[in-house]
Amino acid sequence: MLKLIPDRIEIRSGKQFIVLLNNRTAHMLDLHIGDRVKVKNGKYEMTAILQISEEGFLDEHIGLYMEAWKQVHARRGQRLHISLCDKPASTIYIKEKLQGKRLSADKIDEIIKDIVADDLSDIEMTYFVSGCYIHGLDNMETAELTKAIVKHGSHLNFGDRLVVDKHCIGGVPGNRTTMIVVPIVTSTGLLMPKTSSRAITSPAGTADTMEVIANVINDAGKLQKIAEKVGGFITWGGGVDLAAADDHMIRVRNPLSLDPEGMLLASIMAKKHSVGAKRCLIDIPVGPQVKIKDLKHAKHLRDRFIQIGKLLGIKVKVVFSDGSQPIGNGIGPLLEAQDVMKVLKCEPDAPQDLREKALYMAGVLLELGGKALPGFGYRKARKILEKGIALEQMEKIIDAQGRKKLPPNAKLIYKVKTGKEGKVSHIDNAVIARLARIAGAPLDAAGGILLRKKLNDKVARGETIYEIHCDNEDRMNLAKEISRKNNGYTIREK
Amino acid sequence: MLKLIPDRIEIRSGKQFIVLLNNRTAHMLDLHIGDRVKVKNGKYEMTAILQISEEGFLDEHIGLYMEAWKQVHARRGQRLHISLCDKPASTIYIKEKLQGKRLSADKIDEIIKDIVADDLSDIEMTYFVSGCYIHGLDNMETAELTKAIVKHGSHLNFGDRLVVDKHCIGGVPGNRTTMIVVPIVTSTGLLMPKTSSRAITSPAGTADTMEVIANVINDAGKLQKIAEKVGGFITWGGGVDLAAADDHMIRVRNPLSLDPEGMLLASIMAKKHSVGAKRCLIDIPVGPQVKIKDLKHAKHLRDRFIQIGKLLGIKVKVVFSDGSQPIGNGIGPLLEAQDVMKVLKCEPDAPQDLREKALYMAGVLLELGGKALPGFGYRKARKILEKGIALEQMEKIIDAQGRKKLPPNAKLIYKVKTGKEGKVSHIDNAVIARLARIAGAPLDAAGGILLRKKLNDKVARGETIYEIHCDNEDRMNLAKEISRKNNGYTIREK
Repeated sequence: MLKLIPDRIEIRSGKQFIVLLNNRTAHMLDLHIGDRVKVKNGKYEMTAILQISEEGFLDEHIGLYMEAWKQVHARRGQRLHISLCDKPASTIYIKEKLQGKRLSADKIDEIIKDIVADDLSDIEMTYFVSGCYIHGLDNMETAELTKAIVKHGSHLNFGDRLVVDKHCIGGVPGNRTTMIVVPIVTSTGLLMPKTSSRAITSPAGTADTMEVIANVINDAGKLQKIAEKVGGFITWGGGVDLAAADDHMIRVRNPLSLDPEGMLLASIMAKKHSVGAKRCLIDIPVGPQVKIKDLKHAKHLRDRFIQIGKLLGIKVKVVFSDGSQPIGNGIGPLLEAQDVMKVLKCEPDAPQDLREKALYMAGVLLELGGKALPGFGYRKARKILEKGIALEQMEKIIDAQGRKKLPPNAKLIYKVKTGKEGKVSHIDNAVIARLARIAGAPLDAAGGILLRKKLNDKVARGETIYEIHCDNEDRMNLAKEISRKNNGYTIREK
Repeated sequence: MLKLIPDRIEIRSGKQFIVLLNNRTAHMLDLHIGDRVKVKNGKYEMTAILQISEEGFLDEHIGLYMEAWKQVHARRGQRLHISLCDKPASTIYIKEKLQGKRLSADKIDEIIKDIVADDLSDIEMTYFVSGCYIHGLDNMETAELTKAIVKHGSHLNFGDRLVVDKHCIGGVPGNRTTMIVVPIVTSTGLLMPKTSSRAITSPAGTADTMEVIANVINDAGKLQKIAEKVGGFITWGGGVDLAAADDHMIRVRNPLSLDPEGMLLASIMAKKHSVGAKRCLIDIPVGPQVKIKDLKHAKHLRDRFIQIGKLLGIKVKVVFSDGSQPIGNGIGPLLEAQDVMKVLKCEPDAPQDLREKALYMAGVLLELGGKALPGFGYRKARKILEKGIALEQMEKIIDAQGRKKLPPNAKLIYKVKTGKEGKVSHIDNAVIARLARIAGAPLDAAGGILLRKKLNDKVARGETIYEIHCDNEDRMNLAKEISRKNNGYTIREK
């Protein structure tokens, strides 16, 4: 077997080991671009991906990126063995999925194992996503995909204690029910270790809002202890690596914005399964401006969630909610956190829609968790809130995660006023979300929008419909300019 | 809009421009991994692909790979503008194909244009291949794909003169009919500008064999002139960029060895269309060890070739041939070139199977090109060969391309002998091809296998069945060892 002279390339390649040959050497060894090769240096060896360089490499030389160089303890003047590796078996299964075959549990597990171990290239992962997108994943496959994602990521374990969880299929600005539901539910002794997302294209995710008040922890061991101590937490799922395979797959889904339904369901269920949830509430907002546009689609998803839940041993309840306008008044981390605390403190100006939605959902979870009789969950949740138990419990959670000092409100506040008199007949979520982002949310915690009027509210000419909160003059000017062109509100005149 | 401080990264990224931001900066700008961004420095601008670096970059800094740095004339201490580009429209069409929709001519053209311009990432191209693989391409789409590949590559143009061409759907070692067919056909005044492949996994392609005798030209302008002067040439298609889009797509097809049928057909027809061929012969070897295993598959391909040809204005004739054993005696560039020259020189030990197959194919092309009446092509071809006209024409082509001195035969020759007496009942093409490659083919021109016995030949005990030709002792030892384990021949004893 040919031995090659190593050249060190001063480039980091990330997790994957990458080696380079010139065309002639690759040809001689019958190796091709993208091949997996085994590189050996005495007792040190690695599997690397082969790239071909059209220039800069001598015959019988092999270029090693920094990680690869280190891995095999290469030194100048040495010679390395190189040979072709078999492709991972998972590439065969991926091709089967592309061809429309059902994948068994073992095959799905193998694919996910290889994805997490970085043994599959982006191209190979893309073929997997394509197969799942075009042919779909049935409930059994989706459940197996969920299990595989959980198996090959970190997870929490609370033994026999009952864990409940909730998930909202996003899209509604200001929808911070989680921060009210978790303290209500955990005050009854149920466990609710809640991982949430950060904003991706929205002005704030639950994790961004929680981060205004408390530290967002990303160490699975610490989180386990916090939940054992106070019954729950609210943190950022992305930091905890609970569904590592998911992050990889999302990377290749993004360029075409592909949401293969089975992958979406598995991704959500994996987050529940990985914290050991046995009862789960799924909130599907429905409306023209949110992800799920109509009831037919919502019902189809509901049925799949319930079936997949059964296969995973998770009892799922699905509720449909109104996705037609923002929930609460604040949009942006600080303003949303203030809404949440007002509800928990039962202040008179607390947003009623946020309070009612949170109470309803907490009620469902109390019933699911056996803490309230069917039909009595809402009442129990309201009692817990009104007696101040939820607030007390939230303070415990905040202290357990590490309390943070609330930032001050934004320096600049601009009142957007209406020129018409009438009734608010439509609020454009997309416009409001965009303004909040321009105002700085989610990175500038205080930036955002504070709604003063909601759907069906009466407005007088010149009355404020919402305020723009912003700490930066340039951004504020841009936000003002955009709101002047389209403030996102439709006022029906009488 | 935010302006960013450029950092130069000492890495070449290839054709694509790549820039890097840290997570915070990307988040602030609402940009995501893989996004296309427009980077501006005064009058200089480029479209680049965004990558996110988890370490090493400061907030509000932008890392530029070497090509990107050069493209926008960046300098330290400057500030660059960055903004999100719209995705190319072709990504929308790719998603449509994934969803099973038929693609119009315009959409296919747009996709191929973007592939050639390097405006689509590997992930996006992989989705295109997936869509074509799963949903297929109908004849109309395939014809449009062919046209687009030709349009966005270089091509030859011979005005009204009749151009003929042939193609063999590979897989048979030693199958060098092209080098006999081209001189016969072009001696009659027909044009036959033939581009061929190099060996990929085989011991020699036609281009490798031709290169033993003459230069292989890769300049489209020069090739045009040679064909105008002597009627044809035999060169390597890969060097001429006649189907640039193809090379890109093959890169993402390789990892899963995907051969979407429509892409395969378009790739073949594009090579014919790009040289202006109006009549074309397709040779489909059929057999258990070649690409096309059975007649049903062969007939299906024949029908598609003919239909797609009609849509492109190319009259296609398809022949099925025997793929059960190597054609000719030599396997490897020099040995195959010697076979070809023996046939052209009508030497008594010229391989008859190669001669007959070439005459048959030349005859079909003479009939297709109107140089022989139906049924009289073979006879005319034989006359041209026997009168020495084909040899004379081949010499002209060799001189036009640039004659090369033939290399000497291999220094080491090892005779593989049979221990049995009987009749050759099977030759394993894969074993013979592998031995030829170990012996040095195609890079060592003289390396290869010379068959002394073919199917149905009688052999005595101890008789030579083939010779291994090799210039390197280590390689020869390896080849001997392998042939001792399995020489690839099955001898049926009487």
